[in-house]
Amino acid sequence: MITIGIDPGIERIGLGVVESSNGKMKLLNHELIKTPASLTTPQRLAMLYEKLMQFLKENKADNAAVEELFFARNTTTAITVAQARGVILLALQNMGLPIFEYTPLQVKQSLLGYGRADKKQIQYMIKIMLGDSAPKQDDVADAVAIAITHINMNRLNEKLKILS
Amino acid sequence: MITIGIDPGIERIGLGVVESSNGKMKLLNHELIKTPASLTTPQRLAMLYEKLMQFLKENKADNAAVEELFFARNTTTAITVAQARGVILLALQNMGLPIFEYTPLQVKQSLLGYGRADKKQIQYMIKIMLGDSAPKQDDVADAVAIAITHINMNRLNEKLKILS
Repeated sequence: MITIGIDPGIERIGLGVVESSNGKMKLLNHELIKTPASLTTPQRLAMLYEKLMQFLKENKADNAAVEELFFARNTTTAITVAQARGVILLALQNMGLPIFEYTPLQVKQSLLGYGRADKKQIQYMIKIMLGDSAPKQDDVADAVAIAITHINMNRLNEKLKILS
Repeated sequence: MITIGIDPGIERIGLGVVESSNGKMKLLNHELIKTPASLTTPQRLAMLYEKLMQFLKENKADNAAVEELFFARNTTTAITVAQARGVILLALQNMGLPIFEYTPLQVKQSLLGYGRADKKQIQYMIKIMLGDSAPKQDDVADAVAIAITHINMNRLNEKLKILS
């Protein structure tokens, strides 16, 4: 199974493509899409859509995992990032990919077993799982973490099916 | 000048096409796009994008006016509507339309001269401006109000240019 993980944003959008087979995981590709702040928001959204569609066509996946947004404050940032997330969901849907969504807490719990991990701990864990191919950029590491979360959740569901 | 006004949403998206010429305004067309709650969010976003693109191709406009989002609370609703707004901006950008954004307060002030108008007052004002063709549905009336706001703002800017 090949899963593409996506860390949504308007300035920097992390992408990670992880393959799982026989209990092993391998990072197939990763990318950081950037949209310049000098463009208008609609222009940035159009650039994001185009670049993401290009990446999805070049990196065939079985499904996609996208981080859910949670904002307690700063609704201006929340609205901007959510607009970008809408465009990301549209691209995935138009490519016919099954979409799974996980909260930041689910990602942390899935990777480390508890919800209070910081970014460095997650990167360390990803490095153990994926070896030297593990990406170091924060946004890309987050994207890979989301993909791994989906693979873990999927594996757990398969095991539960066998048991039941 | 033909302006398409859009009231963003995920459940109901109001559209109004208003033509202004020699100081007179005319409602050329209006529509209410609906996406069923039985679909997933990505499916609803894809349906919204497709229906909106169809409408934009059938209703040639010179520019578009979209209501800005403002949410003090309820970030779950904010995120869902903002995701839809991102898809709306993408469609407008992909059609090459200049996009103008107005806050709810700007719309009320432009139509009624002050910011404390309720929906009924706005509908009454739209009826005076557009006559019997004025739409009655809330979301469509809001969309028409946004288009009229842009036409008013544009006219004001033209006058200021002549004076300066």
